[in-house]
Amino acid sequence: MTHSLAPTIHVAREQSHLAWDNSIAPIARVASGAAVAFDMLDAAGGQITADSTVVAIETLDFARVDQVNGPIFVEGAEPGDTLQIELLEFQPAAWGWTALIPGFGLLADEFPQPALNIWSLVDGWAEFAPGIRVPLAPFCGEVGLAPAEAGPHSTIPPYRHGGNMDTRHLTAGATLYLPVEVPGALYSMGDGHAAQGDGEVCGTAIETPMRATVRLTVRKDLRVEAPEFQTAGPLAARTNVGSFYAADGIAPDLMEAARKAIRAMIAYLQRTRGLSREQAYMLCSVAVDLKISEIVDAPNWIVTAYLPLSLFER
Amino acid sequence: MTHSLAPTIHVAREQSHLAWDNSIAPIARVASGAAVAFDMLDAAGGQITADSTVVAIETLDFARVDQVNGPIFVEGAEPGDTLQIELLEFQPAAWGWTALIPGFGLLADEFPQPALNIWSLVDGWAEFAPGIRVPLAPFCGEVGLAPAEAGPHSTIPPYRHGGNMDTRHLTAGATLYLPVEVPGALYSMGDGHAAQGDGEVCGTAIETPMRATVRLTVRKDLRVEAPEFQTAGPLAARTNVGSFYAADGIAPDLMEAARKAIRAMIAYLQRTRGLSREQAYMLCSVAVDLKISEIVDAPNWIVTAYLPLSLFER
Repeated sequence: MTHSLAPTIHVAREQSHLAWDNSIAPIARVASGAAVAFDMLDAAGGQITADSTVVAIETLDFARVDQVNGPIFVEGAEPGDTLQIELLEFQPAAWGWTALIPGFGLLADEFPQPALNIWSLVDGWAEFAPGIRVPLAPFCGEVGLAPAEAGPHSTIPPYRHGGNMDTRHLTAGATLYLPVEVPGALYSMGDGHAAQGDGEVCGTAIETPMRATVRLTVRKDLRVEAPEFQTAGPLAARTNVGSFYAADGIAPDLMEAARKAIRAMIAYLQRTRGLSREQAYMLCSVAVDLKISEIVDAPNWIVTAYLPLSLFER
Repeated sequence: MTHSLAPTIHVAREQSHLAWDNSIAPIARVASGAAVAFDMLDAAGGQITADSTVVAIETLDFARVDQVNGPIFVEGAEPGDTLQIELLEFQPAAWGWTALIPGFGLLADEFPQPALNIWSLVDGWAEFAPGIRVPLAPFCGEVGLAPAEAGPHSTIPPYRHGGNMDTRHLTAGATLYLPVEVPGALYSMGDGHAAQGDGEVCGTAIETPMRATVRLTVRKDLRVEAPEFQTAGPLAARTNVGSFYAADGIAPDLMEAARKAIRAMIAYLQRTRGLSREQAYMLCSVAVDLKISEIVDAPNWIVTAYLPLSLFER
């Protein structure tokens, strides 16, 4: 089997669908080991552009959000197999957006108003405000296969067969393993993110149109129950370069602990960097990482929010 | 104010207590800015030694667990202030232990039998099995202040005023901020850990007697509601040196997601490294990190367990 990088298939922007559904006909068939190139709209399906204002969030049609491109039928893939997805390359557009969408996000009840930030993505960086910039680490939030269960499944949540995993460490060079549930696996992807923190707390990353190339290989020798992956190398190589400021959320419930941690980090960004509460929440979503510090010291668990202080170095 | 590293106070092993309680008399008073050196037993209060067998876990007296050394009265500290704790130095013993304690830990229901691993800590490394070694990154699980509320509070959980935070990134060079609730702050610490993963999933780290030095400074200009801290530098510098293997737990509940992720990581360690299920669970506790990958794509959240593959490089 030859493994050249050159993709054998190019998937176009309009070749997308809005549900995980095993009845959606594949747009192409490839041999196991083939590379496939995708050209994808942003997660809003083109409803937001580099010139948009907050009106675009106020009028956003949620029924058209989180489309995925595909599906690709991989020859030889059968239920019980694993699809190995080598994430070869991600190329974001020259712009991106982050929004507060009413009703969506970890602190949705505290942020009822829509907000939108349009980013310029230049030379691998996204400037948020003077003196604050985020290094790009592009990936796709949506990577998944069709489920065995008949009928449409929303593209908003993730599932054991993938979907909206929004996992920031699935960058170029990583290899993802997903359980195959239907013949041909029926692979799709979408939701380009130029950068994101662990958690994606406001519900949006730096959303961007994306070009991506992946290699799809059927693994008969491996069985996984849910997504597993190997990272390209050290984690968060571009942000893990100096000290972090960290805020704890301590509670008997992990969700409440996470909310407390992000609230404390927002307060820190307000008091030390002069950001508005809305700006701070958006910056948390694209650059702050949520870790579970301890999950065993009953009755109180700790979720900690970590902010790389290197964002503020010029 | 002079800030020499030389500690002005030495706290001895026997100067410990078993509750957070503002009625416990301070063992010493120091000026703001003073350095204090602690010599501490392990979290079992000396019930486990380098020669112990699993019998020590079977007969463990839980009423003597998680003692903390202190308290230190810091002059000038008043309720509403912040105590700044510079973590200057941690020096573990030449041995440590990790245990499965029945009824304790993230998967307690699946691990009813006690187990004990005794580690030799040599030249900054702890060997788990031939070909598997963990780099030391020592810190104290317990760092806290006395609460305003009268009466004894267990040292097992963490609180807004600190306590059993079990936060692996509070290593030497980090600075911790805790809210002062009583005059003098009443600072104590304990629970030496030679290494731990984010989460401490089996409930024990590499537990070890520890010597530590901290500098305690009253901050009238800063107010925190719960623990906040700045790390010494990049996170997990000794383990974030190569690729990680990662397993997702996907569920509508973060606790269930964490349990799934650790179960999948245990299975990975069994199938690829030949560890027993009990060994794999202990290795997860000392070296695997739990991150919240996404917490917004309702109804399913993702907790991901990250294993540094550098543990297996010799």
